[in-house]
This record gives sequence, C-alpha cells and structure tokens, in this order.
Amino acid sequence: MGATGKAIFAQSGGPTAVINSSICGAIQEAQKHSQIGAMYGSIHGILGVLNENMIDLNRENPRTIELLRQTPSSSLGSSRHKLKEEDYDRILKVLTAHDIRYFFIAGGNDSMDTANRVFNMARQKHYELFVMGLPKTVDNDLPVTDHCPGYGSVSRWLAVSVRDAGLDTEAIYTSDTIKIVETMGRNAGWITASTALARQRENDAPHIILLPEIPFSRDKFLADVDRVYRKLGYAMITCCEGLKDEKGDYLTASQRSLDTDRFGHKQLGGVGETLCGMIAEGLKIKARADKPGTIQRVSATLASRVDLAEAYATGAQAVRHAVAGESGYMVTLEREPGAAYSCKTGIVPLTEVANREKKVPRTFINEEGNWVTQAFLDYVTPLIGDPLPEYARLEKHSIPKLL
Amino acid sequence: MGATGKAIFAQSGGPTAVINSSICGAIQEAQKHSQIGAMYGSIHGILGVLNENMIDLNRENPRTIELLRQTPSSSLGSSRHKLKEEDYDRILKVLTAHDIRYFFIAGGNDSMDTANRVFNMARQKHYELFVMGLPKTVDNDLPVTDHCPGYGSVSRWLAVSVRDAGLDTEAIYTSDTIKIVETMGRNAGWITASTALARQRENDAPHIILLPEIPFSRDKFLADVDRVYRKLGYAMITCCEGLKDEKGDYLTASQRSLDTDRFGHKQLGGVGETLCGMIAEGLKIKARADKPGTIQRVSATLASRVDLAEAYATGAQAVRHAVAGESGYMVTLEREPGAAYSCKTGIVPLTEVANREKKVPRTFINEEGNWVTQAFLDYVTPLIGDPLPEYARLEKHSIPKLL
Repeated sequence: MGATGKAIFAQSGGPTAVINSSICGAIQEAQKHSQIGAMYGSIHGILGVLNENMIDLNRENPRTIELLRQTPSSSLGSSRHKLKEEDYDRILKVLTAHDIRYFFIAGGNDSMDTANRVFNMARQKHYELFVMGLPKTVDNDLPVTDHCPGYGSVSRWLAVSVRDAGLDTEAIYTSDTIKIVETMGRNAGWITASTALARQRENDAPHIILLPEIPFSRDKFLADVDRVYRKLGYAMITCCEGLKDEKGDYLTASQRSLDTDRFGHKQLGGVGETLCGMIAEGLKIKARADKPGTIQRVSATLASRVDLAEAYATGAQAVRHAVAGESGYMVTLEREPGAAYSCKTGIVPLTEVANREKKVPRTFINEEGNWVTQAFLDYVTPLIGDPLPEYARLEKHSIPKLL
Repeated sequence: MGATGKAIFAQSGGPTAVINSSICGAIQEAQKHSQIGAMYGSIHGILGVLNENMIDLNRENPRTIELLRQTPSSSLGSSRHKLKEEDYDRILKVLTAHDIRYFFIAGGNDSMDTANRVFNMARQKHYELFVMGLPKTVDNDLPVTDHCPGYGSVSRWLAVSVRDAGLDTEAIYTSDTIKIVETMGRNAGWITASTALARQRENDAPHIILLPEIPFSRDKFLADVDRVYRKLGYAMITCCEGLKDEKGDYLTASQRSLDTDRFGHKQLGGVGETLCGMIAEGLKIKARADKPGTIQRVSATLASRVDLAEAYATGAQAVRHAVAGESGYMVTLEREPGAAYSCKTGIVPLTEVANREKKVPRTFINEEGNWVTQAFLDYVTPLIGDPLPEYARLEKHSIPKLL
C-alpha cells in the first residue's frame, strides 16, 4: 500500500497531442483513491517543485479535467530542466513541506532520468515517496515499452499530411518536381518511418525515406532520386531532421550558437533545405522542402484514437501502481500476441529507461536503407487508429488522339 | 444558349483542399444539361489540351466523381504552363478536332490569364467556344470576388495548427522561447493574416503577424519581439514567405538558380529561418521556425465546410452560365449584407481578373502593421466554417508557498 498524502503531477519534455490525456487519466484515477488527499499540478515540469510553483487540481472544474483528453500540448507547462546536485535538497524540502507522497511525471528519456533521480533521492533520505513515470514521446525512442503515447498521433498526422502533400506533388510536378518533407526525430527515425503509411498504392508518395539509422550517402541519395524521377517524372522524399553522414556527423547541424539545449542536444533543422540544394546541384532539378516542425507533434485534429486511449490508460495505471505501493517504475505498453491489435500495460524500473534511446531496428528498414519493411508497417499501422480517409482516384480512360 | 458539343475541364496552378470539389460541382452540373454531350478532363491544366492528353470523365464511376468532394489536390493534374504564341493554333486544332465547345478551368490569376487567352483566341478565329473560369487560390488574391475557394480551408488549417503550435510554445518556453511559423503567400498576406484566428484570448499566439503589405523593418521587428518576450517570457510570430524589406526586395529570395518558375515568380522560402537568425543575433534568444509548406494548402482533414460548399457551388454555377450562352467570365463570390454570413455567386469578365492581384487592404491591418483589425477578423471568420475545437484551459489556482 502506498502512503496517505498528496499527489503531484508534472509534464516534461516536448508537448504532444496526447500528454494531457495521460495526465487526465492519472487525475481521474487518483480521484478514486482516498489515500490521495489532494492533487497538485507542478507548473513547468520539475521546475514547479523547485520553485514551489504548484496549482490545486482539486479546484479545477471536472469538465475542464475531462476536456484535457482532447486538448493538445502540455496544459501544466513543460520544461527540459536537468537536475543539478543542489536541486535535490530543495525538492525534498518542498515535497516534505506539502506532504507530497506521490510524484507522477509524464515524459521521455530525459524526464525518466529526472523521475529516477527524484526516486533515488527520496530513498536515500528515507522520505516515503511513490514515484511513477508516464511514458510520453513522439520520438518513440523509450526502450522496453512497445511504443510511446504520442507516437501514434504524430504518425497519423504524418501519414495524412504526407499523403496530401504527395498528391500535391503528383498534381503539380510539371512545375514543382521534387518535394522533401523534413520530420522531427533527434537520433531515432521512428517518426520519419511512419510517413510510409501515406503510401496506399504502388508509386504513391513517399518514394524515399531517409532515416538517421542509415548513414547518409550523397551519391546513393542522388541515384535514388534520379531513379524515381526517371520513372514517375517527380519524387517525394521524407527525411529525418537528425540525419547523419557516414562519419556520424549531423548532415546539417544548425550554425547558431544558441541552439544547444541544457541536455547538450543540438537543435536540428534545415536538412530538407540541404537536400534541396544537393538535388539542384547534382541533378539540376528544382526541389522544395516542407518542414512542419512542432505542428506535427502537437496537432489535436489528427490525434489517433488508439493513442489517446492508451495515453489515458498509462496515466490511470501509473496511479494504480503507486497507490498499491510500487515506486520507481515507468508504465509500459505491452503488445499482446495475435492478429488483432491490443496492448496491456506493464511496468519497468526507471533505471532501465532513463537516458536510454531505442532506435529503429534494422529489421524495420529495407535492405537498401531507403524504405521500411512490412514488419514495420505491421508494427505501426494499428497505432494510428482509424483508417486514412477515402479519396477519389480517377481511372483516367484516355481519349484517343485525333491529331 | 450555349452550343451543343463536348466540355473540357481543367485544373491549374497550386492544388488546394477544395479544387476537386469545384470540378465535382462542374461535372455533376454538366451531367444535367443535354447540350453537353461528353465530358473530357484535361490532364495537367492546359498542357492536356496542347498534348491532346485528355480523359473521358463519362467513364468514371459516379461514386468516384462524388468522392472528389472530399479529395485534396488536383485530381486531373495541374500545371503552371504560360501559353506561347505558337500554342494558340494547336489549342484550336485540338478543340475543333474533338468538337469541344465548353472550356472550364479552375485556377488563380495566371490561370484566368490562360482562360482569357483561350477565350480571345476562339473569338478571333470565330470558333464557338464557351469559356468559364472557376476561382481557386489559397492566396485569396483574385480581385472582384469577395474571396477565393481554397482560402477558407488554408485559413482553417492555419487557425487550428497555429493555435496548437502556440500552445506548444506556451508549454515549453522555459527551453524553447520563440517560435516562428512561416506561411505561404507570394505578394499578398491573406494566408498569414488568417493565423490571427488562432488567438481566442488575450496573450494567445500569434503575438506578431508579419505581412508582405507592410515593409519589414528589422528594428521594429526586434522591438516587437522584445516587448512580447518581456511580457510573457515567450513569443510566437507568424510571417509570410513573401516578406519584403523597405526597398521592396524579398527578405530572403532563395539563392538557388532553378527557383524561378515560368511566370517569373521566384520560389520563396526561408524567411522564418532568416528571422530566427535575426532574433538570435539581435536579442540573444533562441528561436525556431516551422514551415508547413504545401501541407497547409492541400490538407483535406481541416478543409472548411463553407469552403467546400462554395467551391462546389462556383463549379456548378460556371456550367450554368456557359450553357446559358455566357463566355469569357470567371465566377465570383459576392457576400450578402447582414449579420449572418451568406454568399451568392456572380460573374466578372476574365480581363478584369487575369494577372491582377488583390492585396490585403490597409483597413485590415492594424496601425502598427503587426496584427490584423477586427474588420479582417469579421471578414475571415465565417470562411473557416465550424468553430475551432474546444480545449481545456486550467484555472491554475496557486498553492500558497510554505517555504
């Protein structure tokens, strides 16, 4: 059994379409447990605890809490603050002063590191605290869990948007021949790989998928583009912002000096434009790049129903584990065997997920390294929920030429 | 009365979310008129006529034609071909050989120029041809018509997406402080202006809107960003790709030599990145740019219901005018007076719209030149159809500090 005391909820790292659904699940579950006396929201992740900047979630209208299910971004505010040694005493003081005994944080690798540090600190100081991590990242790079809440929705957004943008290129290719869509993804290509879902028939976009797991080769890339261009008259390529060359250097690390965050990650971007320049120079063909940026990760309109439900479930499950007396774990999603998709939840010690990244396995990438395999499509398809909308495809019966 | 003969339908210029709805309206209306014996689709705009590359629309499944209403991009293919003198004879030969007496083309300024040239050529050669233009452009820069089919949908896409991306910045501003969303718009700022719809409460994003109608001043821009940043701790700016400086030069014309199309328009892009660099240099604050590119113009998911219906209506109306014997016109949308929004259709001679651009009037831009006026909001709001989805807004009652 967990202690009797207050609970605090925090959101961390990049916002998603469903992280509020996770927090909603946690809050609504916590309301069922008398051990949890009051619910605090930590404003801007762990910074809310450090700065004693917390809100009273019990005073929010229940309808507002329910609306969190369909509200994108992180309503409690997020942060990427990396804890320093001197922060631990302060955190313990704040938790003690407010009699907070439950600590729930939704986030990715960095946030699970934060959760793990808070967990270890409390244990060392003999402060009874039940810490649970809620998985969240569009990057889908947390280990152990089958996938991460947030990923299904960014995948749905890209499947739909790349399909639409591909039809755009197919229509206008007599003037705009080649299009590149640059997606998010720091070191893992999960997001970019999901653009494969846009293809429903042979020759549909995207035609080439560039993942950071495969070292980028200019010659191979230009040969691939040339092949597609000769066949179709146009080409659409999706690429990851975190693309690296054969030496392991980012293809285009931003030149601006302010672009490294507190975890030492470089802010990436501009790979699409770099590839356009390469195509113009190497193939003498005009190319343009779309870079939807943060819109892709946070769009509520194309949130996956499956993702929303799983995000909610992981939040609720985190609370159930904590009140049962478990601590120091992240909730995972475990795919059940069988043809029909279903996932149950599990838990994994935070130490096994903190600061670790899961990349796209080689079995999910085709031999040539420029598309995905059926195994990946089988993996990702159920995560985006409803099938893509039905579009007209004209049969285009030619009129016989008379001239 | 129009002649008895075949009709040809063409789509031209940049694809949109609703140009297929326009063509669907035209095809379904044409089916009701016995004067129109057969319906051809011209593949890739006027190129289909020039190359005698036409399809038989009568052989398409009626369900496929109906599905065009919800299908983005230009299903017949598009082009930006500018007619040359030698093309006219060829066009007349093809039209004559196939007994085509009705010519319908959906497009923007350039396409209305094409329509007007075909119309004049037919009249000069005494070939009986009924030419009607269907307005289409996300740029919303066609004169005379109240607005253009396509604009309501790109506006809805941006209202929703900028709202979501703004919530993202609001959540994560402790690490990502400033965001720029670069929108389409060659010389007119209509698309960028519509991002104002994302703001539902004071302090909501976007905080600054940069239109090409207002000469860009670096000093004014940095002062504006600094003011918002000091007030909120973050800022979100939307800017038009066609931004020009005080000398009238594009802020960032692409450096690549292949980037000028056949109408002499430069392919723009990269303004968002340029502004990020300016902010990093001038204010020492990190900024990032999202550039959704072609995704914004063609997304079917966020197509406006009003826009879809109006696009269909302009297509159907074009056919009614032509079979009534009218030629050389573009269909327009005329807003009816009164508080409740409604539009009827009208017509305007092609000469009055061909190659002419309607910019955002000064009365739609605030005095400072960095936001829109209520008059613009009144103009644009009905065009996006349904209200934006409801999101949770926590009241955030602070917990009293104990330390």
